[in-house]
Amino acid sequence: MTLKEIATYLGGYVVGDDSIFIAGPAKIESAKEGEITFLSSLKYKHFLTSTQASAVIVDTKQENLTLAQIVVPNAYVAFVMVLKLFEPQSHSYIQGISDQAFVHSTAIVDPDVHIAPLAYIGPNVKIGSGTVIYPNVSLLAEVQVGQDCIIYPNVSIREHCRIGSRVILQNGCVIGSDGFGHAPHEGAYIKIPQIGNVIIEDDVEVGANTTIDRATLGSTIVKEGTKLDNLVQIAHNVVVGPHTVMAAQSGIAGSTELGEHITIGGQAAITGHIKIGKNAIIAAQSGVTKNLDENAVVWGTPALPLRQRKKIDVSLKYLPDLLKRVQKLEDEIHKHNKHTYNETDGD
Amino acid sequence: MTLKEIATYLGGYVVGDDSIFIAGPAKIESAKEGEITFLSSLKYKHFLTSTQASAVIVDTKQENLTLAQIVVPNAYVAFVMVLKLFEPQSHSYIQGISDQAFVHSTAIVDPDVHIAPLAYIGPNVKIGSGTVIYPNVSLLAEVQVGQDCIIYPNVSIREHCRIGSRVILQNGCVIGSDGFGHAPHEGAYIKIPQIGNVIIEDDVEVGANTTIDRATLGSTIVKEGTKLDNLVQIAHNVVVGPHTVMAAQSGIAGSTELGEHITIGGQAAITGHIKIGKNAIIAAQSGVTKNLDENAVVWGTPALPLRQRKKIDVSLKYLPDLLKRVQKLEDEIHKHNKHTYNETDGD
Amino acid sequence: MTLKEIATYLGGYVVGDDSIFIAGPAKIESAKEGEITFLSSLKYKHFLTSTQASAVIVDTKQENLTLAQIVVPNAYVAFVMVLKLFEPQSHSYIQGISDQAFVHSTAIVDPDVHIAPLAYIGPNVKIGSGTVIYPNVSLLAEVQVGQDCIIYPNVSIREHCRIGSRVILQNGCVIGSDGFGHAPHEGAYIKIPQIGNVIIEDDVEVGANTTIDRATLGSTIVKEGTKLDNLVQIAHNVVVGPHTVMAAQSGIAGSTELGEHITIGGQAAITGHIKIGKNAIIAAQSGVTKNLDENAVVWGTPALPLRQRKKIDVSLKYLPDLLKRVQKLEDEIHKHNKHTYNETDGD
Repeated sequence: MTLKEIATYLGGYVVGDDSIFIAGPAKIESAKEGEITFLSSLKYKHFLTSTQASAVIVDTKQENLTLAQIVVPNAYVAFVMVLKLFEPQSHSYIQGISDQAFVHSTAIVDPDVHIAPLAYIGPNVKIGSGTVIYPNVSLLAEVQVGQDCIIYPNVSIREHCRIGSRVILQNGCVIGSDGFGHAPHEGAYIKIPQIGNVIIEDDVEVGANTTIDRATLGSTIVKEGTKLDNLVQIAHNVVVGPHTVMAAQSGIAGSTELGEHITIGGQAAITGHIKIGKNAIIAAQSGVTKNLDENAVVWGTPALPLRQRKKIDVSLKYLPDLLKRVQKLEDEIHKHNKHTYNETDGD
Repeated sequence: MTLKEIATYLGGYVVGDDSIFIAGPAKIESAKEGEITFLSSLKYKHFLTSTQASAVIVDTKQENLTLAQIVVPNAYVAFVMVLKLFEPQSHSYIQGISDQAFVHSTAIVDPDVHIAPLAYIGPNVKIGSGTVIYPNVSLLAEVQVGQDCIIYPNVSIREHCRIGSRVILQNGCVIGSDGFGHAPHEGAYIKIPQIGNVIIEDDVEVGANTTIDRATLGSTIVKEGTKLDNLVQIAHNVVVGPHTVMAAQSGIAGSTELGEHITIGGQAAITGHIKIGKNAIIAAQSGVTKNLDENAVVWGTPALPLRQRKKIDVSLKYLPDLLKRVQKLEDEIHKHNKHTYNETDGD
Repeated sequence: MTLKEIATYLGGYVVGDDSIFIAGPAKIESAKEGEITFLSSLKYKHFLTSTQASAVIVDTKQENLTLAQIVVPNAYVAFVMVLKLFEPQSHSYIQGISDQAFVHSTAIVDPDVHIAPLAYIGPNVKIGSGTVIYPNVSLLAEVQVGQDCIIYPNVSIREHCRIGSRVILQNGCVIGSDGFGHAPHEGAYIKIPQIGNVIIEDDVEVGANTTIDRATLGSTIVKEGTKLDNLVQIAHNVVVGPHTVMAAQSGIAGSTELGEHITIGGQAAITGHIKIGKNAIIAAQSGVTKNLDENAVVWGTPALPLRQRKKIDVSLKYLPDLLKRVQKLEDEIHKHNKHTYNETDGD
């Protein structure tokens, strides 16, 4: 692909030789000849003189540059588009519906669906056009999947769950496992049937081995555009999103509701039955135990406003010494008081 | 199903019209006409006047109620029974032993077992009557599974492990992976073979993508009635339960033993080679580093008695200010001492 | 197997009757007649008089012992070898290439590979001799696997990833899922294509349900001899090892690089874009937010040198009381000052 073709695709213009052939994208510090890179932050500008890349995507035309440039309004977004351009088309290997897949006779599958060998499509499942189902995937009875989804190997979706369109389910994630409901009764636990389901809205991505439990009654909901990383836990009756991101190994306990555009760091946990306001940011490893207002930024267990938690953390370093200082003050005061007492006594 | 039929099933009696048809159960705040709900706590009593439900299950007969009531000894347990009544019978889709499953010729499978397409049943595996095996499940050599178990998609059980009766294994959980044993030797690690197994006793439930490692020697044991949530880690040679609950993303390191009726919060961790006494409660995200007595209630990392940890957490908010206060005291004392010294000096 | 045969295999010598038959290995405290155990630490020496074992492996010949001994240079390593000797040969059940597996016509598979029923081997996959592929494993297009690997059930390896030799992948682990890259753009997130791969070097072990994301560009790398426990998260473009161990439920965020011989405790987290020096030790549940030097030993969130963090933790127990003590000091000083002031005033 020539630089000119890439510039046209990006809606930008070339400064330099637009006929050069581009083999693929690369990071500025490790790019080789024939590759294209990008400059999104001035912080990396010094690499421009040392990079071996043949071309660079920039927001602003750079002067005195030996390598070719594509100038676009947003270099970062343009580079994402270039990555997309060079993405290997692995899905193309899965063609049509494999006769080594199991597709139940009552399933309603669009002719344009791709189903790999060893996938299981259960009774009354519906799958929309353009969706790709990889090997060892299990879609149980009554599951509905929209259009242009990608369901990677070893994903399982339990009965009655609904998946929107353009949803990506990474390997091994579980949609619709039973919520963790057990009622203590006469020294043992009895299982509370989990008869609800999970609804995943459009443009959601669910990470590898992430688990999303079905609701006891009603639905656990992951709203439009939300992105969950790997090994995340979403308990029954939780509502997340839209456009919320949760980093790896974070978790939300039952019935908690998250608003839009929330950011949750890795290994953070949110207790059950609370509400998190929109745009809140929860730092990694935090433990949120109470409702959070819109725009809250918190850290720690229990989670406190980030600024407050940071102050406490700095102060903690002085705590062992502080104990000694207070002991010393007490000794001095005690000595003084004794002295004073003795003086008084001596009067 | 009529209200009368439900009352009979629950062993309760109806106040109001017992001929009304009930379509299903619902939460009191979102129930619609034709649905039945329950009142387990007086806290929700105000919903009784606003709910759209057609009937409510109560412990004590309510006066002045327009909707019908079923009066039972324990409304909560009765409601759980109603959920069970209306649970979709998804397992009924898996009938007999699919000829698209792989069942090894040496496996001993009760005729009443249900094995879905694409399940793998290895050599010398034994499966008891009434057990349901979903697609993409792998039971390796010599595995034994009792009666009336449910093994959801993508579960794998490794060689020689034993599963009791009425056990539920949620999707993707792993029973019997190798324990994490590696001996440092000449700058590298050599693998310590893990030749034990895992024993899961009756009425246990294991959550989605939870992992339970086989013992180095002997058995890792999950005792009767214990319930593990999703993404839980149980290391080799651990003993858990009976009747213990572990919330999502919690973990137990090797050779630790837990007594009965223990409660472990989400993302809590317990170190290896210790003992946790019965009825102990370990709050979410705690890190338990030492033995715990019976009835201990702990929180934090390292875990401390809950009351003590809470006091510390409250105190922490005053710490940054405390540093300033002590500094001020020191300055005053110092000034005073200097003053005293000067006075003395001036004498 | 006789004791003499075991001694020969271990390169040690027998003290006592070398003709006795050994049924298997066992722990010293639970060994039965006919079993062999070991003494690696003097701490367990008192068990030598009570153990029911028929033989014990020791570093140093023991006097006055009724049971037989094998004397070797390193009793611990010798015992690991004995475990290996008695390991059930479960892999032997998987013979040749099952005709109930799916093997793509373009895959290049050594004749000595073992592929179980219901495994999926995609286009252009290469697998070296001696490797065992269990049921419900998915190897997508262009994956390369070396020699003598064991890939347990329900593992999935995504397109273009490369696995070395003698690698063990425990059940359900995911190699090469998409990195978590989403660029905020006009109120939503756009997916950043993850066009790199994962490289797993020789002698690595990956735990059950662990997830290793593919790189955005280039490779996520797990170096030689590194051992990852269960439910571990390795984000895109991370480099780990060689000879590093990560305990269960720990995680590393994107682009962080770990040197050799690092030890990471359970549930610990390491932030993105930092470097961890060789031989560093990160205690369980720590949160590492900055680069760590070689040989660093840290604990807590944020991670501090272990000794400092421990001092802080001890001090914390005195904090609630410290607040009262400072209050008392302030009262005394205030009283004193008032007194002094009054005196002065009274002058």
